[in-house]
Amino acid sequence: MVRSIAFLSDLGVRDEAIGVCHAVMDRIAPGVPVVHVGHGIAPMDVRAGALTLVQALPYIATDTVVLAVVDPGSGTDRLALAVRTAADRLLVGPDNGLLSLAWRLDGGVAEAIVIEAPDVLIQPVSPVLHARDVFAPAAAHLAAGRALSSLGPVTDSAALVTIALAEPEIGDRRLSAEVLDIDRFGNVRLNVRPDQLTAAGLEPDEPLEVASTATGARVARIRTYGEMSDAGLGALADAWGWISIIRFESSAADLLEVSIGDPIWVTAAD
Amino acid sequence: MVRSIAFLSDLGVRDEAIGVCHAVMDRIAPGVPVVHVGHGIAPMDVRAGALTLVQALPYIATDTVVLAVVDPGSGTDRLALAVRTAADRLLVGPDNGLLSLAWRLDGGVAEAIVIEAPDVLIQPVSPVLHARDVFAPAAAHLAAGRALSSLGPVTDSAALVTIALAEPEIGDRRLSAEVLDIDRFGNVRLNVRPDQLTAAGLEPDEPLEVASTATGARVARIRTYGEMSDAGLGALADAWGWISIIRFESSAADLLEVSIGDPIWVTAAD
Amino acid sequence: MVRSIAFLSDLGVRDEAIGVCHAVMDRIAPGVPVVHVGHGIAPMDVRAGALTLVQALPYIATDTVVLAVVDPGSGTDRLALAVRTAADRLLVGPDNGLLSLAWRLDGGVAEAIVIEAPDVLIQPVSPVLHARDVFAPAAAHLAAGRALSSLGPVTDSAALVTIALAEPEIGDRRLSAEVLDIDRFGNVRLNVRPDQLTAAGLEPDEPLEVASTATGARVARIRTYGEMSDAGLGALADAWGWISIIRFESSAADLLEVSIGDPIWVTAAD
Repeated sequence: MVRSIAFLSDLGVRDEAIGVCHAVMDRIAPGVPVVHVGHGIAPMDVRAGALTLVQALPYIATDTVVLAVVDPGSGTDRLALAVRTAADRLLVGPDNGLLSLAWRLDGGVAEAIVIEAPDVLIQPVSPVLHARDVFAPAAAHLAAGRALSSLGPVTDSAALVTIALAEPEIGDRRLSAEVLDIDRFGNVRLNVRPDQLTAAGLEPDEPLEVASTATGARVARIRTYGEMSDAGLGALADAWGWISIIRFESSAADLLEVSIGDPIWVTAAD
Repeated sequence: MVRSIAFLSDLGVRDEAIGVCHAVMDRIAPGVPVVHVGHGIAPMDVRAGALTLVQALPYIATDTVVLAVVDPGSGTDRLALAVRTAADRLLVGPDNGLLSLAWRLDGGVAEAIVIEAPDVLIQPVSPVLHARDVFAPAAAHLAAGRALSSLGPVTDSAALVTIALAEPEIGDRRLSAEVLDIDRFGNVRLNVRPDQLTAAGLEPDEPLEVASTATGARVARIRTYGEMSDAGLGALADAWGWISIIRFESSAADLLEVSIGDPIWVTAAD
Repeated sequence: MVRSIAFLSDLGVRDEAIGVCHAVMDRIAPGVPVVHVGHGIAPMDVRAGALTLVQALPYIATDTVVLAVVDPGSGTDRLALAVRTAADRLLVGPDNGLLSLAWRLDGGVAEAIVIEAPDVLIQPVSPVLHARDVFAPAAAHLAAGRALSSLGPVTDSAALVTIALAEPEIGDRRLSAEVLDIDRFGNVRLNVRPDQLTAAGLEPDEPLEVASTATGARVARIRTYGEMSDAGLGALADAWGWISIIRFESSAADLLEVSIGDPIWVTAAD
């Protein structure tokens, strides 16, 4: 049985770390395609990795093994996990919450294994690169058809580390939201879905007022980046279904003076 | 029938966009290799994308499906195309000229289809990322052997958007040329082929004088980057067959004070 | 016979060079997986490429064809090599020492061929991109099962260009070492293995004193990056088995005022 492996990490593409992980997988599971979902997660940012993973998940075939590594605790006593979700998907990565949004989307954990089998680990295991010596070989063995249970002992899925994303508070024509992410262009992604604006009584074409603790601005409702004119801000549903505040060839984050995690209040514009 | 897919875009490798497109293709066409030709086209620069594509085309197997996405009009009414060229090659991308240099190299368009089939599009189609929801699935279905005509209605190939590259004016020991591209090192690529210099009566080893509207310089004729000495400029045929003006560990574009699209006059050096 | 190809270069991922090399290989050897080990070697830095290659080699399957290109001499009379090592591994790349640490690790060269066969080279061969027109097609033909000896004439393996890495001088509780590499975070990799510290009588948990020609500092012994506190320096065995000097979210190279190749003296801390 040959399945693909989808690989997501914060390891970057400048050095050979992900390439060697790929070589390790190709050796264990020859011919199994590796889809590099992305390696540009901000270094050590587990929450950003979890968010990217859960956004990508619906586009990844269910029989693809997902390998995700954002692992500030490499070499410590955090567990190395291989998980089967309730939707029968296999996830491999550290027990730091990185996988938790993904398995929640899949309906929870059906089986969780600690990767410990001596014939899976690549010796000597480097404390500073479990990606290569623990996670990549585990994913490859699974992709090659090896049984999940053979990778190590079962662990209590209720005790695994999880991450929670704050939900917006939905009021009467207002939402209390949070900055979920800011991309390299300064676009401000909110933890808000279009249907949550509607649930607050804000119509799809209705201009909004957004306010940070520092400042506020009027925001037009748009569908595509091309609709932005030279001035002002726009709010659109981005490719991952979040409301994003954007600014024409400029940084909305700078204008609103916000960082990731900051509160944002969304109301109807006057 | 399993063919490869060659994927070119301006989406960059910093976020997960191209990785998710790859995952989409891997799900639809399991095991079909994806060759990432490059994702570093300047954002929204359709002309640069068209140029890169046509340069890469001779190196791509004819039975490979070419997926190209530089798409400032994502979500607007520009058509989403799947094209069979006169050389029996399949091209997928937006109708904004991006594919047009490629199909011209192949002798024209044999069949042009608008990608609209409901079982091809990934719902909900995001207006801001047709790469993932329209183009990648279309390319994958073609690579998996689905008939081109099943992707949507035929469109008039004579009405498709095209791009033209300016040809140099060839005179008596002089050419009126144009800056086709400037790379990250400041090398200045001209819209001139070596045989066009010869056609103008400029011998292969003959030093040249190049002039911009701002300034001019003498240019030695060289074959390899290694022949450059510390001083001055060199002209060589680059890897894609264009005459490039280079400077030793420095920017020729800065010295000549030119940008992409600027005129350059090439004559014999005194 | 279908084997993988492992591809390492200094060509970067910003333009289409490696993508076109991949397309060339996919055309010659359809379906053969290409593992991009890394393309971020410092441009033209043959020694850094050789080092990266030899570090990655133990993780690459023996029947994978290794394609390595860091080639400042492209288009000159340096040989284009295809080598079978004593460990029966196939290596392809320029004769400038790039492959030499790898074949030494494999016990030497069993057979060395100059790539010259007309049906291997892609015409016209660009002097400035042998990666695409010479090395990539040679690797692909080998991966597709073509005999090494059919790629061109045998050459004398004793005459090939080699690179040597300096070994540290091991004294009584002191080593004279050298800066092997400095990564993008400013971590300073020494040409020292943990067992060489032990051989010098320096215990695994014993703090060290490191001195450059400019300055010196006390260095704690650590196992993981996470053990670093806000202040001071740490020495750990990095993922490739070298002793690296690191500093908490800061550049150890700046603090020690060292560059690649500089001497470093390691002694016991007081």
